[in-house]
Amino acid sequence: MLDRNKDRILIVGLGLIGGSYAQGFRRAGFHVGAVTRSRESIDYALGNGIIDSGTNTLDREYISGFDVIVFSLYPKTLLSWIRDNQDMIKPGALLTDVTGVKCSVVYDIQRMLRNDIEFVGAHPMAGREVYGVQNSSADILKDANYIVTPTPANTPAAIETCREIGRILGFGRIATLSPEEHDRMIGFLSQLTHCIAIALMNSHETEHLAEYTGDSFRDLTRIARINENMWSELFLMNKQALLQEMDLFIDQITRIREAVRTDDEQLLRQMMLKSTRRRICFDKK
Amino acid sequence: MLDRNKDRILIVGLGLIGGSYAQGFRRAGFHVGAVTRSRESIDYALGNGIIDSGTNTLDREYISGFDVIVFSLYPKTLLSWIRDNQDMIKPGALLTDVTGVKCSVVYDIQRMLRNDIEFVGAHPMAGREVYGVQNSSADILKDANYIVTPTPANTPAAIETCREIGRILGFGRIATLSPEEHDRMIGFLSQLTHCIAIALMNSHETEHLAEYTGDSFRDLTRIARINENMWSELFLMNKQALLQEMDLFIDQITRIREAVRTDDEQLLRQMMLKSTRRRICFDKK
Repeated sequence: MLDRNKDRILIVGLGLIGGSYAQGFRRAGFHVGAVTRSRESIDYALGNGIIDSGTNTLDREYISGFDVIVFSLYPKTLLSWIRDNQDMIKPGALLTDVTGVKCSVVYDIQRMLRNDIEFVGAHPMAGREVYGVQNSSADILKDANYIVTPTPANTPAAIETCREIGRILGFGRIATLSPEEHDRMIGFLSQLTHCIAIALMNSHETEHLAEYTGDSFRDLTRIARINENMWSELFLMNKQALLQEMDLFIDQITRIREAVRTDDEQLLRQMMLKSTRRRICFDKK
Repeated sequence: MLDRNKDRILIVGLGLIGGSYAQGFRRAGFHVGAVTRSRESIDYALGNGIIDSGTNTLDREYISGFDVIVFSLYPKTLLSWIRDNQDMIKPGALLTDVTGVKCSVVYDIQRMLRNDIEFVGAHPMAGREVYGVQNSSADILKDANYIVTPTPANTPAAIETCREIGRILGFGRIATLSPEEHDRMIGFLSQLTHCIAIALMNSHETEHLAEYTGDSFRDLTRIARINENMWSELFLMNKQALLQEMDLFIDQITRIREAVRTDDEQLLRQMMLKSTRRRICFDKK
């Protein structure tokens, strides 16, 4: 169990999600520190009551003062940060993250990690189309899904603490999946849908079409506004799962294309009935 | 110019859109009649002040009493209705429709039509995921796009009256496109996006995924709940345009797949930058 009077939380990477975590922890009464590259972000967060302390340098004395560290970094940066700086971490500390892919970070981290600290992966399914600590808010975590992705290397106590973090921050649903299950699920529900939105917007000069657009096209392409540096990294770090999901989807859309080409009205109807039946489960209760 | 004290409006096909048109015309002070297959729909519409009169039989005397006829039928039913019953229509009447495809209905209708009546195609880009006159409301037309699709066979006066109908019903933007331009646009913005949603929902057993779903997947697949009879007809009646749009899209998604497979981070970033730039134009002002 985390103790707000004893356990100090460090956020590494103070962007949209890192800043939102910081605010959620502070609201719950924890002492929150931050390490991030930009001095400006630290100053903003200090000035706006988002953190209790913070630094943009790698200070051994500072970092070793924290009991829980949440990494909110791009996947490759996360791996190199831990490789290069784990010797600064307090013995017994719990490490977790917010990365959108799991297999390609969790196992590498656990392999290289010191024996006296533990890392449990987690993925908060929250976000916005804007970036930076300036746009952060504990409210974006509220009612979102939070997925803990333990491996056989993790202890029950650390897994439970990681789930507790989800409860402290006000997430709506707290789930546990293996890194593999997580990556397959995210490959389909999130990465494939982003690929589709990108492909749609790349299909055409679309400027003149905006005036004819209904809500369905607008909804479908909202996620085509995308942080190209983060998402290209996420796609490639989930390559196998994403390729598999793309192939399943391309097969199905090609099947529809063939049904249209050959006037196969019956197959079209069958596929529509199936999509209608399956989609009903996704309506919000 | 339409005259609310003189011009009587007939709705043929009293479903969601037909019923919404009826309410909009009545609200504007017009006398509105209806012909539809179901006696129940007529009774409901009469009982709820949606129409002034109505019948579920094909009555020459009744039908010949109207100056404007709006057809709100599936495309094939529209074609056969006009072929079989146009002799009942009053000389000088203006005919229009609400069909979601244009080339394959407008030209055929104009070819077979009597010389003393005129048909101008139109497409209200409005709808809901529910059906029937019971769900109709003039409000669903408000601020939606309304597209008039005249051909060289149309007179300026009839085209203008058809645009006037859009203004009377409170549409937001009234545009004029050729049937060919309309079908290309709708093939991309509407039909292709429906194909994508159907293909996505056909890719997987998805029931167990609903609990992990974020808003983007939910938004993207909302239109996967689809009227299979109407949409399979619409797809096949816009076959050439739809196939062309599907091919453009399949090319782009295959390009993304190849970039993922070959770790081409630069191409992924380029495509994301393009999609982000283009998508900005679609944000509601």
